[in-house]
Amino acid sequence: MPATDITELSSSEQTFLDPYLPSPSAPSASGKSAKLPFVTLTYACSLDGMIALAPGVRTALSGPETKSMTHYLRLKHDAILVGAGTAVADLPSLNCRYPGAEFDEQPQPVIVDPRRRWKVEGSALGRLAEEGKGRQPWAVSLGGNSDEACKRLVVEESEGGRMDWETVLRKLKAEGIRSVMVEGGATVINALLAEPGLVDSVIVTIAPTWLGQGGLAACPAVTTVDGRRVNAARLADTTWRQFGADAVLCGRLGA
Amino acid sequence: MPATDITELSSSEQTFLDPYLPSPSAPSASGKSAKLPFVTLTYACSLDGMIALAPGVRTALSGPETKSMTHYLRLKHDAILVGAGTAVADLPSLNCRYPGAEFDEQPQPVIVDPRRRWKVEGSALGRLAEEGKGRQPWAVSLGGNSDEACKRLVVEESEGGRMDWETVLRKLKAEGIRSVMVEGGATVINALLAEPGLVDSVIVTIAPTWLGQGGLAACPAVTTVDGRRVNAARLADTTWRQFGADAVLCGRLGA
Repeated sequence: MPATDITELSSSEQTFLDPYLPSPSAPSASGKSAKLPFVTLTYACSLDGMIALAPGVRTALSGPETKSMTHYLRLKHDAILVGAGTAVADLPSLNCRYPGAEFDEQPQPVIVDPRRRWKVEGSALGRLAEEGKGRQPWAVSLGGNSDEACKRLVVEESEGGRMDWETVLRKLKAEGIRSVMVEGGATVINALLAEPGLVDSVIVTIAPTWLGQGGLAACPAVTTVDGRRVNAARLADTTWRQFGADAVLCGRLGA
Repeated sequence: MPATDITELSSSEQTFLDPYLPSPSAPSASGKSAKLPFVTLTYACSLDGMIALAPGVRTALSGPETKSMTHYLRLKHDAILVGAGTAVADLPSLNCRYPGAEFDEQPQPVIVDPRRRWKVEGSALGRLAEEGKGRQPWAVSLGGNSDEACKRLVVEESEGGRMDWETVLRKLKAEGIRSVMVEGGATVINALLAEPGLVDSVIVTIAPTWLGQGGLAACPAVTTVDGRRVNAARLADTTWRQFGADAVLCGRLGA
């Protein structure tokens, strides 16, 4: 798989990232069930916390230096998970083009698609799988049938007809997925930032730009304690590193 | 002025900041009139680009490591400018408590107060000035009179009854202010991010937390070119450095 613009990370870049990645020596979030995979939440945003100029608009944010990082991270996880909106709008490849990556090191693409908006037919992911450049994607839905070109994991609705994240992640672990890299979009990010018991590491790339009002924000819901607003989420054990014009922040999601 | 929690920056921290600060060897934004001061825009925000949990709510964001930086930056500017909303809600001191700072090194506090919401009487700034710990503040307003305890610079309304930033800055330069550090709040930040010809440097501290929806955002207005949304602003010549749990980004506002 030729990938002229994706190069090996330097050893200091790897040393920066590795403490936040799944490994036998990096246990998952304390108290977390062994029935759950290691979860790394990762995205790129602007200084005003936006991931796109508007919903459904692909927006180049981070520079070339972090592209290699993305593929290094994909190499280190069993699965890459995105929401159906991102799968439809961004046409992501979700494969690993890190130098030397073999087919059996390709991560499993997982589309979280509660309402079955996404179809493998005609998708970039489906085409890549046909070309042998990535695995056949899986979808996770509330209901569905097996009469489809892709594997569809079915989870039951929780109260309010919503998809429960712990159930989704348990289902993936039961399928042999030990680690999941979550790449977006905003709906998925904002939901998981409110689930510190499920997310082990967060890796955010920040680009030195402002997208402006009306953009698609990585911004969790209002959080209150005893009727008072409090921070919605915060990271512990943070470390930052400049990558080109951008910075990458690694941390652990505090309870 | 005792300031046990404010310490001198290391020489490498100073070397990181100094290229973005006013000095004879750091000319102001190219093409900028000599009738304008050097302007540094600085603020602290969360990963979702918020500067406070809600308008009028003081919100601790950055850690102790960047407090010393704030006072180093204040030492390097002739004036510190904030909007009236911030002056009322945050009760800022706006003085310089950097180790060894003499009274004649104190920056001039400037409150941008178009509608004369702010009064020096009873303000933290007024009290500090009485105690000899800072200069007597100035206000900049659309109209006003001299029958007040503080100096009030009057600028004329521009079209739409608004205050024109170039006029404000020219007025300050005419008063002998060669450099201005703008510390907020959101209204001022968002207006100046849309004025790349007026701002020389931007220094943003990013704290590894998300304040959540409904917070007060440092986020400029929607910007369109030929009817298409584009990034509202971007920085060039960026450099990042970790300060404790936070990162500081320095850059120049591109046209």
